[in-house]
Amino acid sequence: MHEIFLDELKKLNTQFMEMGVLVNDLIDKGTRSFVDHDKKMAQEMIVEDKEVAKEAIKIEKKALDLMALQQPVATDFRVVISILKATTDLERIGENANSIAVETVRVKGNPRIPEVEKIISRMTHQVRTMLIQVLTAYVQEDEKTAREMLDGHEDVYHDYRKARQMIIDGVEKDPNVAVASASYFVIIRLLERISDHIVNLASWVIYKSSGELFELITANDEHQKDNDQAKEK
Amino acid sequence: MHEIFLDELKKLNTQFMEMGVLVNDLIDKGTRSFVDHDKKMAQEMIVEDKEVAKEAIKIEKKALDLMALQQPVATDFRVVISILKATTDLERIGENANSIAVETVRVKGNPRIPEVEKIISRMTHQVRTMLIQVLTAYVQEDEKTAREMLDGHEDVYHDYRKARQMIIDGVEKDPNVAVASASYFVIIRLLERISDHIVNLASWVIYKSSGELFELITANDEHQKDNDQAKEK
Repeated sequence: MHEIFLDELKKLNTQFMEMGVLVNDLIDKGTRSFVDHDKKMAQEMIVEDKEVAKEAIKIEKKALDLMALQQPVATDFRVVISILKATTDLERIGENANSIAVETVRVKGNPRIPEVEKIISRMTHQVRTMLIQVLTAYVQEDEKTAREMLDGHEDVYHDYRKARQMIIDGVEKDPNVAVASASYFVIIRLLERISDHIVNLASWVIYKSSGELFELITANDEHQKDNDQAKEK
Repeated sequence: MHEIFLDELKKLNTQFMEMGVLVNDLIDKGTRSFVDHDKKMAQEMIVEDKEVAKEAIKIEKKALDLMALQQPVATDFRVVISILKATTDLERIGENANSIAVETVRVKGNPRIPEVEKIISRMTHQVRTMLIQVLTAYVQEDEKTAREMLDGHEDVYHDYRKARQMIIDGVEKDPNVAVASASYFVIIRLLERISDHIVNLASWVIYKSSGELFELITANDEHQKDNDQAKEK
């Protein structure tokens, strides 16, 4: 009985990882379609986002079935729960990546701010690196790396604030970039949200190996920081 | 044994509802602090957001304990799972409300666009109504009302797009509103995200009573719509 369970669990973990790789690919495509004005790629993403959603629901169903039928305990219990929760974060990351692609169509032929798009590309590279790191940490139950995601999130957040000011200055200098600025504000926020979800994923890595519930605390600390920085401003 | 479980479950439901009401209050405070330039209220929210995060972790821990120790089946199983998942959405709504308050400090004494703030207030009223409806639907296991949340979400999304254009026009007309526009773009997106989380909550109401997993599908359809509308633009 337990062998069957472990076998099912192994399959579930593989599905989860495959979904993670798919989502990481979507982040890349989302930003590239926007920066390279590639509307075709943006449209393709709708289909792939549907794939991710289908995959997520498959994983969630399987996790719930395992939970209900096998009633796992201890570590097995935590593995299933962590997948059940982490899958939602992965799926949201995919949605956010798709929302970035949506801006490709919205910004159309409007004047842009190249320096802002450089930061957007950098933020994208950063969150994609973080996602691969957290997925690897998940497999290896590497708590240390999982905790380091908070540092990565700080870098993304720093870029978010930098880009935000850059966009404001850009619009003040030239109101013609107003349409692009709307897309920029949305995109940098989406990338910051993706980073947030990666921190959540990290918290489920920690829960999986230690049984500690972390997520909500880190999310809140991030918010505290957000408030503090806003006060400094 | 089962009596004890049901009693625990009842307590858990009450905690969940109380958290929902607290979060609904945060949405109101977030927007009011921004629209009324009330920095004091914005700062108070940091404390309340911490309360929400603590409450969420308490509920999640209790749900996981019930799951592990009592190994509920059928309906009981679905109730615990739905709380375990829905609590995360409630907590995110609280974070988003807090992020709205953060903008209060950022926008400081900069020129604003009153019409945009009217829509922001309307969107806020709409999501708060939706949140109360979905929480009530949760208690009453009212699938019909839960499904209607998608219509409410469409209204919010419509306002989001309307406000977005209004902000772009405002900045083009007067670059001095650039700083405020940054806050506006962030806030309307946060309100749209809150509405998204309410749709997720609705999907857990449906799961709780029917066992169907809905969330990911609706989230994806919303995205499809997002892309279609972008294409029209």
